[in-house]
Amino acid sequence: MTHLTEARHHLTRELLPFWTARCRDMVNGGFITHFDKNGNDSGEDEKSLIAQTRCLYTFASAHRAGYGDGELAEFARHGADYLLSRMWDEEHGGFYWMTNRRGEVVNDQKIVYGQSFAIYSLSEYTLATGDPRGLEYASRTFDLLQKHAADTQYGGYFEMFWRDWTLKGPGPAGGDRKTLDVHMHLMEAYTTLYEASRLPLHRRKLQEVIGILLNKVLHPEYGTGIPQFWADWRVAPQIKFDVIWGWDRFTEDGVKREAEDNTSYGHNTEFAWLLLHALETLGMPLDDYREALRKPLEHAADFGIDEEYGGVFVEGSHAGTVYDREKEFWQQAEALIGFLDGYRLFGDEKYMHAYDRVHRFVFDKMINRPVGEWWPLMTRQGEPIWTHMSHSWKINYHTVRSMVQSIRRLEQLAARSIPAARS
Amino acid sequence: MTHLTEARHHLTRELLPFWTARCRDMVNGGFITHFDKNGNDSGEDEKSLIAQTRCLYTFASAHRAGYGDGELAEFARHGADYLLSRMWDEEHGGFYWMTNRRGEVVNDQKIVYGQSFAIYSLSEYTLATGDPRGLEYASRTFDLLQKHAADTQYGGYFEMFWRDWTLKGPGPAGGDRKTLDVHMHLMEAYTTLYEASRLPLHRRKLQEVIGILLNKVLHPEYGTGIPQFWADWRVAPQIKFDVIWGWDRFTEDGVKREAEDNTSYGHNTEFAWLLLHALETLGMPLDDYREALRKPLEHAADFGIDEEYGGVFVEGSHAGTVYDREKEFWQQAEALIGFLDGYRLFGDEKYMHAYDRVHRFVFDKMINRPVGEWWPLMTRQGEPIWTHMSHSWKINYHTVRSMVQSIRRLEQLAARSIPAARS
Repeated sequence: MTHLTEARHHLTRELLPFWTARCRDMVNGGFITHFDKNGNDSGEDEKSLIAQTRCLYTFASAHRAGYGDGELAEFARHGADYLLSRMWDEEHGGFYWMTNRRGEVVNDQKIVYGQSFAIYSLSEYTLATGDPRGLEYASRTFDLLQKHAADTQYGGYFEMFWRDWTLKGPGPAGGDRKTLDVHMHLMEAYTTLYEASRLPLHRRKLQEVIGILLNKVLHPEYGTGIPQFWADWRVAPQIKFDVIWGWDRFTEDGVKREAEDNTSYGHNTEFAWLLLHALETLGMPLDDYREALRKPLEHAADFGIDEEYGGVFVEGSHAGTVYDREKEFWQQAEALIGFLDGYRLFGDEKYMHAYDRVHRFVFDKMINRPVGEWWPLMTRQGEPIWTHMSHSWKINYHTVRSMVQSIRRLEQLAARSIPAARS
Repeated sequence: MTHLTEARHHLTRELLPFWTARCRDMVNGGFITHFDKNGNDSGEDEKSLIAQTRCLYTFASAHRAGYGDGELAEFARHGADYLLSRMWDEEHGGFYWMTNRRGEVVNDQKIVYGQSFAIYSLSEYTLATGDPRGLEYASRTFDLLQKHAADTQYGGYFEMFWRDWTLKGPGPAGGDRKTLDVHMHLMEAYTTLYEASRLPLHRRKLQEVIGILLNKVLHPEYGTGIPQFWADWRVAPQIKFDVIWGWDRFTEDGVKREAEDNTSYGHNTEFAWLLLHALETLGMPLDDYREALRKPLEHAADFGIDEEYGGVFVEGSHAGTVYDREKEFWQQAEALIGFLDGYRLFGDEKYMHAYDRVHRFVFDKMINRPVGEWWPLMTRQGEPIWTHMSHSWKINYHTVRSMVQSIRRLEQLAARSIPAARS
């Protein structure tokens, strides 16, 4: 099978069926988001903002991309209903961080990472279905970020707030830090918000967050992403926050081993394709951004690819040394899209080679067949380390989006290659 | 007469009576703000946001300071009614820049300089009268600035917008520039907003704009104010904007003679006392800010004082050369307060000497007796150049505030000096 037919088969026969078969909570609304290695409900009593919004994004975006014969729009509406009725804070605005399955709030903090996914998924939902509630609440959330989260001294956004949008304290509470993660996902969210609204304000704020990413977050020499900063954009040692949205590995004292020289291949490839998507949505000429697009992709292709076992490593130094050779699901997912964009943009075969190495690892080892979803974390060689198919921080956004976006790019490549073969 | 008795007499017998006798528009609401050298209505058919808000501030603050036996609160309410019913944009939010006397909008742009005076005066109005509408609309205006005006890339605020809050273009339209003027007045406005609301968000944004002023707007070596910047805070040559709020003198092509090395003694002394007031309102220790407070005051005391004719000059270089030796009303007004604060803070007699030089110029030459207001611009020697008592950009805010604030400081000095004399 070709890359394209493998991807189409996986998306339509494995991934989407995995989710439509089991994730809708018909009792309490919203989505069940915890499944074990066999795809059975593992019972955790939580509905996280991340998982609910990502699942909404998945169904809305797959519907908009033409999958599901309309059924996925219904799943999306089901998710939006829960999000707006159970997770929106009517008093202070914004979305709570966590409810239990019944929809009772168990963590009422306002975490910008989560708000960014609310903006992203609700904008995509309106684009996919026409339901105006999506864009309405995305816009309200955007407004709240401008009012409460934006740092009008140093630029960018603070990230960790209490329910009433008071900034949290320093250190693990996170109130004195800024991250690549949040600013990259705000770029992603504002891109789709602008696509849905076409408002000059949303356009301008998207351009501003791109400016922050290019001038503050990317390493000035290597063009790779730096994970954490102080409020004034000096590089901060990478620490673990009290409220987390992933399963990054830290030492027991919550500090990264290489806390000040560390960059993630998955973030870098994700950043590059999200930036390219933002620039294309804005209709901006790419010439000024070629180096910003090239450097993180090249760093990942040159240093992040496992030529022996396939796949992309976790993280390493900005100069190139690899620190962590395990294989995380989301980094594979984003690298697939990023390397296809690298090939599209620069025509360099090394990106197609890198794509192939990651594709083969995913399709030969990371997909948990016949269950249909991906193992979250594997050894370098491809043995599962963690085995859940989904929890609050691993849902379907990376995997489904990776297939939808890869298929689109592979189709474009296939279409381009036909006339080329004829000439 | 002592400084204090002169100031009390001028405020209560000349200044406030000048305004209460003639400024209330009983036909159309709001305030008449154009008076000639004899104090007669000069007839210009405009009500500017600046003049309406400054007049509101004057009455509210003078009432709060204990003047007028309650009458000034009625004047303030009269002004607030006009501002909220005629100048507020119900569709896009924010205050229009200009109406005619009948209250019809003649310039619907959203100019941040004007919005900052709306926040300042409406907050003072609630503090003075308890009418909650003031703080409500001040807070709404604050929210709009966070949403539309804040620059989330470089920090600070853009300043010039169309009615719908779309950023204006570059050059004289001003959309690519940032100024000392606006950021200083936002500090002033947020200080009073925070005093009225005591909200953590208003506190934080006040601290952020102080950070911008200290780290971007003040000259890194001399601590003096730099008038204009590009969006990224590189110093920009000082140009004249299409929408202005003062009568700065430019050459015919709209550029300052010393466009990139120019600082105003009035702005520097005003900045220092407004910063001190902000820090005291925030309850922050002054030790970290002593140099930021001292440098602009010392620059004005060392270079800006006219030892021959009295008063403070207009502007000069950061290093000390005086460029413009004329005498503007508002610079005298702000220097009076600033030098009294300099004396209070540093105990250095040179500030009391500088105060006396400005005080004498004002009381001997600048007050247009017996009319009661100040000449707007005089030669170095003290001959009037411009002769209007009020127009859209010269109203009572500088003069009345200068007297109210100077009297408060002179009273404190007098109270301190009594026990000192006894000891």
